[in-house]
Amino acid sequence: MPELAYVNGRIVPIEDAVVPVEDRGYQFGDAVYEVIASYGGKMFCFEEHFTRLDRSMKELFFPIVHIDQIKRAAIELFTKADIERAAVYIQISRGVSPRNHSFPGDIPVQVVMTVRKIAGKNPPIQELGISAITVEDFRWGRCDIKTVQLLPNVLAKQKALDAGCYDAIFVAKDGIVREGSSSNLFILSEGTLITHPLTPDILPGITRSLVLDICQEKEYPVRERFFDKSKLYDAVEVFLTGTITEVLPVIRIDGRPVGNGKAGPAASALQESLLKRLKS
Amino acid sequence: MPELAYVNGRIVPIEDAVVPVEDRGYQFGDAVYEVIASYGGKMFCFEEHFTRLDRSMKELFFPIVHIDQIKRAAIELFTKADIERAAVYIQISRGVSPRNHSFPGDIPVQVVMTVRKIAGKNPPIQELGISAITVEDFRWGRCDIKTVQLLPNVLAKQKALDAGCYDAIFVAKDGIVREGSSSNLFILSEGTLITHPLTPDILPGITRSLVLDICQEKEYPVRERFFDKSKLYDAVEVFLTGTITEVLPVIRIDGRPVGNGKAGPAASALQESLLKRLKS
Repeated sequence: MPELAYVNGRIVPIEDAVVPVEDRGYQFGDAVYEVIASYGGKMFCFEEHFTRLDRSMKELFFPIVHIDQIKRAAIELFTKADIERAAVYIQISRGVSPRNHSFPGDIPVQVVMTVRKIAGKNPPIQELGISAITVEDFRWGRCDIKTVQLLPNVLAKQKALDAGCYDAIFVAKDGIVREGSSSNLFILSEGTLITHPLTPDILPGITRSLVLDICQEKEYPVRERFFDKSKLYDAVEVFLTGTITEVLPVIRIDGRPVGNGKAGPAASALQESLLKRLKS
Repeated sequence: MPELAYVNGRIVPIEDAVVPVEDRGYQFGDAVYEVIASYGGKMFCFEEHFTRLDRSMKELFFPIVHIDQIKRAAIELFTKADIERAAVYIQISRGVSPRNHSFPGDIPVQVVMTVRKIAGKNPPIQELGISAITVEDFRWGRCDIKTVQLLPNVLAKQKALDAGCYDAIFVAKDGIVREGSSSNLFILSEGTLITHPLTPDILPGITRSLVLDICQEKEYPVRERFFDKSKLYDAVEVFLTGTITEVLPVIRIDGRPVGNGKAGPAASALQESLLKRLKS
């Protein structure tokens, strides 16, 4: 079960995988990415991730990319790595060119992938829940595009860890609650699940969409609408959703307990439904 | 006069210079940079650029970096390349580590440099001036740190080119004029030069600072204060400042002429004073 990388058609051990220093991903963050999780040796929501990757590239005016070729390469890499529980990371940059802000001419994009094992979480945070801090959302204006403009996310996550918490929740200047540092966010308030609507300010999460889908199927009341920090503090339950995150209860925010301070039944039911889909 | 690169102690041709795919600069944009210009075989404002680089790393909680070692390496690389008019690009990332938002443990930073020729501009835009568009500032909240979170700058620059202009000027949602896509901005209004004050929303430009210094020396009235788009449109002169940009007149904004639509005497005088310092 080797951890492998793919760079523009070549499969190599991760430690041998390199890109030119003038890759625009390196010098401008001019690159998009996806992370696909596998369960029992099967990549989950493979098509959905590639659809989003394709959209990200279109939003950034990347040259036309043969997405089917990249899909085949991802399958080949994943098969070779042969890891049951893996994170498949796919990054596509606008290509390699002498440093210049403007788009380079007609040059090929740079495709890089890695397959790494996902370690089980200990303690089992999915059951126990996690604590979080809120931080002002200081990210750029196109968080709906999955790019490597991730330094604010990195700084927010680290700030949470330094405060003895697990994650950070971005809250806009005007008080509107956005999402986690690498996940979407839901609250349970007055019997209804609420999450931020799809705007340029949040990532259109695939797990977010699955959770909305499960809610509809199970007839749980759910709304996509804006809510502010006071509503977050007063929520009965709060949870994060994401590809690696799955459904993760938040039991403490800024030092205050959420609801009764324990992982709640809504998050637990949704996590169970999600796992059923993941493993089906 | 070869164009060369430096990667963690090794000097190689630029096309052979590579970094690992799990460099945090590549996957998170977790890297800072500087561009130093040389005139007549001498790097200009060398100390100022390294002071800012050091500050950028401190603001991002990078591990302690021996800046003197990097300075010596920059001098060695520049000397070997032996290019009279060069752009020396220096990028330092938080290091190489399996992908994870949180800061990695105690690992070395990654130091990459390149030396490339600066081509003369034809037509001579410094004399003729350039046209610009305004775009909403959608960058992240820490533009005072010189990081590779540059995708919004890339998109703004390209939007300008697509509109037949040379550059884009970022204007905040509330109408406050910030700076160019890779430069600071000054206006001449009612006999006074005005530029945005140093806040987290703009880069503390070294050329900006030199221009302020020249103004003081020459007793030109100058103020660092906020101004809005209508004041930009009504300005007598507008110009951009930057390491490669120098003092660059803007003669058209959003299709409207600036002042009489020609490069003005204030920009020209400042460019002349700047060149004197550059070449002294």
